[in-house]
Amino acid sequence: MRLTIERSVLLKSLGHVQSVVERRNTIPILSNVRLDATGDGLKLNATDMDLEIIEAVPAETGQPGATTAPAHTLHDIVRKLPDGSQIELTYDSADSQLSLRSGRSRFSLSCLPVEDFPAMVGGEFSHTFRLSAADLRALIDRTRFAISTEETRFYLNGIYLHAAKSNGVDVLRAVATDGHRLARFEVPLPEGAGGMPGVIVPRKTVGELRKLIEETGMEVSVSLSETKIRFAFDEAVLTSKLIDGTFPDYERVIPTENDKILEVDRKVFADAVDRVSAISTEKSRAIKVALEKGVLTLSASSPEAGSAVEEVEAAYDASPLEIGFNSRYLLDIMAQIEGEAARFDMADAASPTVIREVNDGSAIYVLMPMRV
Amino acid sequence: MRLTIERSVLLKSLGHVQSVVERRNTIPILSNVRLDATGDGLKLNATDMDLEIIEAVPAETGQPGATTAPAHTLHDIVRKLPDGSQIELTYDSADSQLSLRSGRSRFSLSCLPVEDFPAMVGGEFSHTFRLSAADLRALIDRTRFAISTEETRFYLNGIYLHAAKSNGVDVLRAVATDGHRLARFEVPLPEGAGGMPGVIVPRKTVGELRKLIEETGMEVSVSLSETKIRFAFDEAVLTSKLIDGTFPDYERVIPTENDKILEVDRKVFADAVDRVSAISTEKSRAIKVALEKGVLTLSASSPEAGSAVEEVEAAYDASPLEIGFNSRYLLDIMAQIEGEAARFDMADAASPTVIREVNDGSAIYVLMPMRV
Repeated sequence: MRLTIERSVLLKSLGHVQSVVERRNTIPILSNVRLDATGDGLKLNATDMDLEIIEAVPAETGQPGATTAPAHTLHDIVRKLPDGSQIELTYDSADSQLSLRSGRSRFSLSCLPVEDFPAMVGGEFSHTFRLSAADLRALIDRTRFAISTEETRFYLNGIYLHAAKSNGVDVLRAVATDGHRLARFEVPLPEGAGGMPGVIVPRKTVGELRKLIEETGMEVSVSLSETKIRFAFDEAVLTSKLIDGTFPDYERVIPTENDKILEVDRKVFADAVDRVSAISTEKSRAIKVALEKGVLTLSASSPEAGSAVEEVEAAYDASPLEIGFNSRYLLDIMAQIEGEAARFDMADAASPTVIREVNDGSAIYVLMPMRV
Repeated sequence: MRLTIERSVLLKSLGHVQSVVERRNTIPILSNVRLDATGDGLKLNATDMDLEIIEAVPAETGQPGATTAPAHTLHDIVRKLPDGSQIELTYDSADSQLSLRSGRSRFSLSCLPVEDFPAMVGGEFSHTFRLSAADLRALIDRTRFAISTEETRFYLNGIYLHAAKSNGVDVLRAVATDGHRLARFEVPLPEGAGGMPGVIVPRKTVGELRKLIEETGMEVSVSLSETKIRFAFDEAVLTSKLIDGTFPDYERVIPTENDKILEVDRKVFADAVDRVSAISTEKSRAIKVALEKGVLTLSASSPEAGSAVEEVEAAYDASPLEIGFNSRYLLDIMAQIEGEAARFDMADAASPTVIREVNDGSAIYVLMPMRV
């Protein structure tokens, strides 16, 4: 194998693949990136056995060939080379070394046989559809903060992506929950997604996907089956196993009859919550929301620190209510609301509250109250 | 106590004092900031018993008085208040609560009696002199990276500040070392510093001092005795205990007879060291410098990763030499060299090397070699 490639091109691609490679691996070859040089250019491939990324980049191939080299070390070297460099990669199977030359720098990296590099068995994808990068980004951003980190509830460690009906309209829906809060976001169902199985996309895949969207063009092609999902970008293809579990019947926990309606200015409310939470204890983060006609009072107290009270202008016309929330969760949700005004649909101090933008129902958030 | 103060003024000052206050304290009052309101304004005071900061800021005092309140909580609240706010602080001794009002926010903080707040006993300062902020900054920046973190060698956990003679000229000198490397920087001895005792300024004091310099005017007044040092800025005064120990006789470890002289372009050399070190093991960080007339070759190898070689243009006219260094230490020193060219005075592979700028001897660095 021998090829010449631009440093900036290789760096960008290694940036994607090295992030899939775990820092510590019990199986040595999982620390490596697979390099395939063909007449078309260079193909890079990294995997952690659950998630695989393959990226094709332009390169001048002198002699085709393939090997695997330490991903993080290679990324580190390329990162440190001067901007604008040309890099020459040569693999000599006689000594199993990948040689990297650029300017006056010469590196020799220990390789492992390309035959030992695990390939993710493709299988058939039952559904394929195209999504705009903006829609995919929103499906992730509006929901990922609510993904559970409890490993025992592994079926909550991802985003549940599925087809659903929303007011009679077919939608593609993303849902995440950790049992304390739930986030649901939907976009019109893309052509080809009808009848797709509901799938749980793991947290790490969501993170890598989000990074790729940042740099991509307009559209992403999504293919999926019961066990795998694939996101095809212009140059990179991310294939991931799905979480093998059943996502809970989340519809049951979204109240529809809550009749105490509160509307607040999102920013004013969030800033006040943030201030008042300065007093709430590090552990509980609890703050109290007291509602009377037209006025909302936030308060918090802790035995050590003292107490805080702040009034916020609010549109509220129902009977008085006192309800407690985790201030961190409230702020997470407020950070996802893009419009000026947020709406809370409440029932009582013990039942879940529904939060959403006043003028947009595509995202809804459900928050369990706390006793305060 | 009752006063009104601008949020930005209080925030800046609390930023200074809260950083002296440790996050966890076994003595509760050490978590508090002491507030003294007088006709002149507000005085803030925080201490960890070794280091004390007192800052005076303008405020409109309605009723003089004093109390102590949780420093981090107060800072957190003021930080979260809107820019441009006016803050009203009231202390009511009847319920030991500090009340803070601003806009629609009201906070009540638990206070501790001002009588229990520890004061750093002043004592007499034997020497006082003025230093430009630029000189003080350089004395810190050129040396602090070499401060030891080994708690057993407590006498190395700071910067040794003392008067010395350098080529017959009186200088104020800062020295720090961790046994592997040593950094020495000097400025002309300020008036009033003649005959001052040599003092070891603790690491935390150095850090807090450095932050204050960032924001200060032109000059700092320094007072010291055998046991304490005080830095007086326009508004803030930092008083610190000194490390009670004997700094080693560092002059003995600075070689003066090294006759193998190497000159390199600082940036070219540092970039090459950085690249080659991508291969050196995480633990040792060792790289080898091989010198022959006019050419310097950097190399590194590790059993897992492979090997790296890079040539760097260099002015070198002595007999060939191979010497190993910790690449991290080399880069730390290169980061402190401001001129274009760095000079290495070497003897052999087992003896300390002296590094400095080619055209400026005010800072010198001594680096112990490694076996490679």
